[in-house]
Amino acid sequence: MKKDVNRKSGKKKPVILITNDDGLTAPGIMHLVEAVKDLGRVVVVAPDKPQSGMGHAITIGFPLRMHKTDLIEGVESWSCNGTPVDCVKLAVDKILHQKPDICLSGINHGANHSINVIYSGTMSAAIEASIENIPAIGFSLLDHSHEADFSGAMIYARKIVEQILSKKADKHLCLNVNIPAVDIKLIKGIKVCRQAYAKYKEEFHERKDPSGKKYYWLTGEFLNFDKGKDTDVWALKNNYVSIVPVQYDLTNYSLKKMVEKNYAW
Amino acid sequence: MKKDVNRKSGKKKPVILITNDDGLTAPGIMHLVEAVKDLGRVVVVAPDKPQSGMGHAITIGFPLRMHKTDLIEGVESWSCNGTPVDCVKLAVDKILHQKPDICLSGINHGANHSINVIYSGTMSAAIEASIENIPAIGFSLLDHSHEADFSGAMIYARKIVEQILSKKADKHLCLNVNIPAVDIKLIKGIKVCRQAYAKYKEEFHERKDPSGKKYYWLTGEFLNFDKGKDTDVWALKNNYVSIVPVQYDLTNYSLKKMVEKNYAW
Repeated sequence: MKKDVNRKSGKKKPVILITNDDGLTAPGIMHLVEAVKDLGRVVVVAPDKPQSGMGHAITIGFPLRMHKTDLIEGVESWSCNGTPVDCVKLAVDKILHQKPDICLSGINHGANHSINVIYSGTMSAAIEASIENIPAIGFSLLDHSHEADFSGAMIYARKIVEQILSKKADKHLCLNVNIPAVDIKLIKGIKVCRQAYAKYKEEFHERKDPSGKKYYWLTGEFLNFDKGKDTDVWALKNNYVSIVPVQYDLTNYSLKKMVEKNYAW
Repeated sequence: MKKDVNRKSGKKKPVILITNDDGLTAPGIMHLVEAVKDLGRVVVVAPDKPQSGMGHAITIGFPLRMHKTDLIEGVESWSCNGTPVDCVKLAVDKILHQKPDICLSGINHGANHSINVIYSGTMSAAIEASIENIPAIGFSLLDHSHEADFSGAMIYARKIVEQILSKKADKHLCLNVNIPAVDIKLIKGIKVCRQAYAKYKEEFHERKDPSGKKYYWLTGEFLNFDKGKDTDVWALKNNYVSIVPVQYDLTNYSLKKMVEKNYAW
């Protein structure tokens, strides 16, 4: 296809699939598109509504729909009524009709470091791509607000995407990138990390609705139990961009040995 | 509390939290309760509707509600409008007001071996418990039907729960147990396994609604790319009950080394 060939180098331009979990209208995804759109042929397939905390949910109980939009000028973009993982699956099967060269997810409004990776729709979309042999990167900025300043995140996202596109990537490559919410001058660089053992001490707010019936809102305090200096939480606290390589093999091999040895199966 | 003490041994009876992803009215959860209810004080907190494929989704955009039910005779049981992971969180914070001694999830109607673990609400509930230092086991029978025969699964589920309760378990213990859908006489025993690299070749059925608009249904063919005889798929095919110990640290340590070495960060 003519439009997928770079006019200067004659090389085929990479196909870049972009999704997120905050929905197609979130500033984060617009900034990600803006940061990388000249690096290849960008196609956006993203949820039509916020899908934060959807983890690796897929839709099996009702039909999925997609609509082409003109929300992002000059970029083919689709909204979908499914989850972030549904968006990746549908994009490959029904829009691209091929595997893209890379899948990017984000930029998420809010952190996805430590245990957050497991609840994150942003990261689940990236993990789904990597299961399907598509190298993938999820990006998150440590600022929940709609008005967050994505300027530093855009520069680092582009830098990381350029690196990964510069050579043949591992087909199951999946990176969880978190970016501190500080002025770019204060960012010290990039650190490849492990996932910190840090999580939420959760409590639910108990309230009553106007008819006196109880309901609950999830809330919680973030606690870091991990003293390591090789973790994503440490890196972010020290103003580094963190990259955690992520896997979808959930086998706990050390627990496997222990379970084989300690019980009489 | 008097009712939590075993009258014969004088030992404190373990508190057993049970949930699932097929919903409180599914036969699978009733059979799991039946299989283990004399092993401790059983409390059930389960979704009020099917939540298959919900993965590790949590509810953050709307309030959660719970209702006490008398669906299961002699067992405290609650229905919840949230996901399986929400059920675990709410049960600990608002019903038990303590961590249970063990969390059981299932028995799922359908397989959760290989990559299914990542999409499974059943297994995500168990993983959530293990993050919270609660040993956890998810059970799945390889039969999707409502009328599935759970008799073999009940015997193996009880056997495995008894084993884990027999000694102090690793606080992050999480087991993914799958049970072949064959007559119990044909089951050869239990195998501790790793997660197979086996997944779905997905396609979406494209249809049109009465007004001519396209919609899509997820479907797919299951493919096993893994030749290993130490996998869950191999064990199940050979009529063993498979146990895969599961982790929530998604760091890919071998990819981490490669990413550190091969790119100029």
